[in-house]
Amino acid sequence: MKIDINSDLGEGFGIYGAADDAGILALVSSANIACGFHAGDPVIMDRTVRLALERGADVGAHVGYADRQGFGRRPMTIDRRELELMTLYQLGALRAIAEAAGHRLTHANFHGALGNLSFVDAEVAEVLLRAVRTFDRDLTFLALPGTEAEKAAERHGLRVVRSFLADRAYDRRGLLVSRAVPGSVVKDPARIQERITRLLGDGTLETIDGGVLRMTVDSILVHSDTPGAVQLGQTIRAAVLEAGAEITPLSRL
Amino acid sequence: MKIDINSDLGEGFGIYGAADDAGILALVSSANIACGFHAGDPVIMDRTVRLALERGADVGAHVGYADRQGFGRRPMTIDRRELELMTLYQLGALRAIAEAAGHRLTHANFHGALGNLSFVDAEVAEVLLRAVRTFDRDLTFLALPGTEAEKAAERHGLRVVRSFLADRAYDRRGLLVSRAVPGSVVKDPARIQERITRLLGDGTLETIDGGVLRMTVDSILVHSDTPGAVQLGQTIRAAVLEAGAEITPLSRL
Amino acid sequence: MKIDINSDLGEGFGIYGAADDAGILALVSSANIACGFHAGDPVIMDRTVRLALERGADVGAHVGYADRQGFGRRPMTIDRRELELMTLYQLGALRAIAEAAGHRLTHANFHGALGNLSFVDAEVAEVLLRAVRTFDRDLTFLALPGTEAEKAAERHGLRVVRSFLADRAYDRRGLLVSRAVPGSVVKDPARIQERITRLLGDGTLETIDGGVLRMTVDSILVHSDTPGAVQLGQTIRAAVLEAGAEITPLSRL
Amino acid sequence: MKIDINSDLGEGFGIYGAADDAGILALVSSANIACGFHAGDPVIMDRTVRLALERGADVGAHVGYADRQGFGRRPMTIDRRELELMTLYQLGALRAIAEAAGHRLTHANFHGALGNLSFVDAEVAEVLLRAVRTFDRDLTFLALPGTEAEKAAERHGLRVVRSFLADRAYDRRGLLVSRAVPGSVVKDPARIQERITRLLGDGTLETIDGGVLRMTVDSILVHSDTPGAVQLGQTIRAAVLEAGAEITPLSRL
Repeated sequence: MKIDINSDLGEGFGIYGAADDAGILALVSSANIACGFHAGDPVIMDRTVRLALERGADVGAHVGYADRQGFGRRPMTIDRRELELMTLYQLGALRAIAEAAGHRLTHANFHGALGNLSFVDAEVAEVLLRAVRTFDRDLTFLALPGTEAEKAAERHGLRVVRSFLADRAYDRRGLLVSRAVPGSVVKDPARIQERITRLLGDGTLETIDGGVLRMTVDSILVHSDTPGAVQLGQTIRAAVLEAGAEITPLSRL
Repeated sequence: MKIDINSDLGEGFGIYGAADDAGILALVSSANIACGFHAGDPVIMDRTVRLALERGADVGAHVGYADRQGFGRRPMTIDRRELELMTLYQLGALRAIAEAAGHRLTHANFHGALGNLSFVDAEVAEVLLRAVRTFDRDLTFLALPGTEAEKAAERHGLRVVRSFLADRAYDRRGLLVSRAVPGSVVKDPARIQERITRLLGDGTLETIDGGVLRMTVDSILVHSDTPGAVQLGQTIRAAVLEAGAEITPLSRL
Repeated sequence: MKIDINSDLGEGFGIYGAADDAGILALVSSANIACGFHAGDPVIMDRTVRLALERGADVGAHVGYADRQGFGRRPMTIDRRELELMTLYQLGALRAIAEAAGHRLTHANFHGALGNLSFVDAEVAEVLLRAVRTFDRDLTFLALPGTEAEKAAERHGLRVVRSFLADRAYDRRGLLVSRAVPGSVVKDPARIQERITRLLGDGTLETIDGGVLRMTVDSILVHSDTPGAVQLGQTIRAAVLEAGAEITPLSRL
Repeated sequence: MKIDINSDLGEGFGIYGAADDAGILALVSSANIACGFHAGDPVIMDRTVRLALERGADVGAHVGYADRQGFGRRPMTIDRRELELMTLYQLGALRAIAEAAGHRLTHANFHGALGNLSFVDAEVAEVLLRAVRTFDRDLTFLALPGTEAEKAAERHGLRVVRSFLADRAYDRRGLLVSRAVPGSVVKDPARIQERITRLLGDGTLETIDGGVLRMTVDSILVHSDTPGAVQLGQTIRAAVLEAGAEITPLSRL
């Protein structure tokens, strides 16, 4: 059994840092790198790509809104054609930097409010995944299961890798429970480890209301902007290894 | 004899327009497109690429400083490594948009204050052209003759196309005379036409001080942000045709 | 009878122009000036303030979202506290520039998507008008009648001047009909003139569905970003003068 | 004897933090707050102002270039008129936020590359200080002794408070030694304390080349972006108190 561990990295800007990129990259096998719109800049993109290359981790484009002030987390109403073009723009920018560093771009996913919209809005998901596919049909899409974005990626014939959020509760439909709901965020490392062990064992998960959900996942996300992200990464890594899985960059699953 | 006519286009931003892109694209054979740093945005980049495609014109990346407020015309002190990476970023972004539109990226050049620096600063020219060459060794560099940028492009083995500014005076070394010098800008269409006829005829140019300069050029620039840019383009186009040259996109010279 | 004519001006950015500010300022008595967020910059703010001063026109702050790419017209979800603070920021910035030019800030209103939100969202209207009132209780609020923003301004004890959009249809409640509805934009100068004559005459307006609406207005807006804005301004100006009204900056109504 | 301790604060942006503002504000008596150009935003400006208010510290505007990417530290060539207007803009913006929080703006100084330029370029210093004086003749200018900016402030009749950089070496003219020079940065807390004790004692300082410099200072700067800024602040604070001085906000010296 091979499992990828992914994380959103390169989220600083100028003098500003965000996560402990090097610390997290020592634990994960795939990096989703901000492309200069919601976070990141050419220098940080290059630095993060090179850290990933040293570590043997895949690099993907983490595409977001052009809103550094709000870190791409604020809903914005943007014309669908513009969404498609700004996705192409970010993909191209990161690929140029990755290839110049001797690495290659393996995947893409969407950040923050744009990501949330792509989960539920089929038309937005369609243009975003069309952009990914037009850009490079060999890219993998890193999806949350059950979302419109996942469906659009499949419709476009893209390879899909499914990501599991070990520190977040799911409902019976397999969708993430909003952070606003009590109990939606799992903080206890023991419980996070337990959930991974079970999911990688029998392919099931306990839902927020105590039900049982069957779920197939290929990758587990390490939230990089949580306090204690490195520790979360260690917990996830240990759980994956204990489950007997081999930690593998998503392009080689 | 084949001659390219090039122009800097796609220099609007959001609701703002700059030049009459469609009008100028009816006259030129190569477009140097702003990449979202000093001007341009994904929507305008796409629109300009598609206009060029319809017209059969080449598209190149016009790389500049991240300074929309100053339109990339203000000198800024930027670390050379950052210059190299922001060049890669812009090249990659435009190529993604060009290819999605069914076009291809043929060339690159540098805008405004960054361009000026690349003319005289050998170390800056080196990193900028290294970025172009790392990105794609098949790109053409659209150069001003006699500049450090031209030399760096040759050093990197890039194909170089030399651009002539028909409405600007040159000195005996073949360098542009600063706009601050009286007589440095040629406004009379008859004189512009004359200069092109002579240059394409016997390969010479009258310098600002009345000397004779031998110069080899492959392309003529239509300044897009001059009032009367379309008329300037018509003058240049007519002069090129009258000289018996075939107007040809720079990749096919 | 005194009537103000107002217009949204100073909407350029860097090298980019928007409306014919000088042409429109020859026709109006109050200018609502962009404050560098959705449009404008310190140089353009200063230039517009000085044009207004020469012309004897009032200057007010036209507060908008920090979204130059979308010209402040795209809905964004911004925390209410941030809305309040960014309003203060813009008011302070413009007042500093206006006073340095020897002018004074007389009023405020909200632009684009932020304006639209302030019409219908009572909580947003509350924080925006609280910011205006905290900043300067002697500012006038330039309101659209019947909106939540108008109510909030009254609640805060601000002087309110009501603006009429002579080229836009109203419904029976006195609210603007969305531009998406056919017939919502009045283009015929004769009809625009007629509507002003009637409104300034008997205080009534024909609604989009042929009803009669009673409305009290103090100012008429000249849309500056319409093609033919200067001509629209001339039409409005002529109609106001013909109705026997004296065109007067809003602070002196 | 009264001495102010000042620090540059509010230098975060959006989700990004910079210094430990609260920790430093527990130690200093005046805060120089970034105004949203090189760093800061309305929310952070407000938060920093309120922290200062709680602590009884003065707040001043720390005016910089519009260059968040480079944190205002990169030289840019900006038209002097634009420098003047962007100074007014930033002063006005911060004052609006400070006054809404119930505080008042007491002073101004210049950040990074703009500050450096104001030390040596008399014409730039002139327009910057003219902007401060035009904005509010009662503002104090927080100066480095011996600079063009200090002279311009005096010429404009502004009250000047002189700041001492306890962790930086000075030359015989009383000017800061460039960070590029070995020995220009003093890191040893004991030596920093010693320098303050001597300066507040007999008004002298040992220069980098072992000479003796007579210097009058009113305030001591705590560099906020140094690792260990809080510890530096504690060292400075302890030294000032040991010298028998009363730590006093700069407006009340």
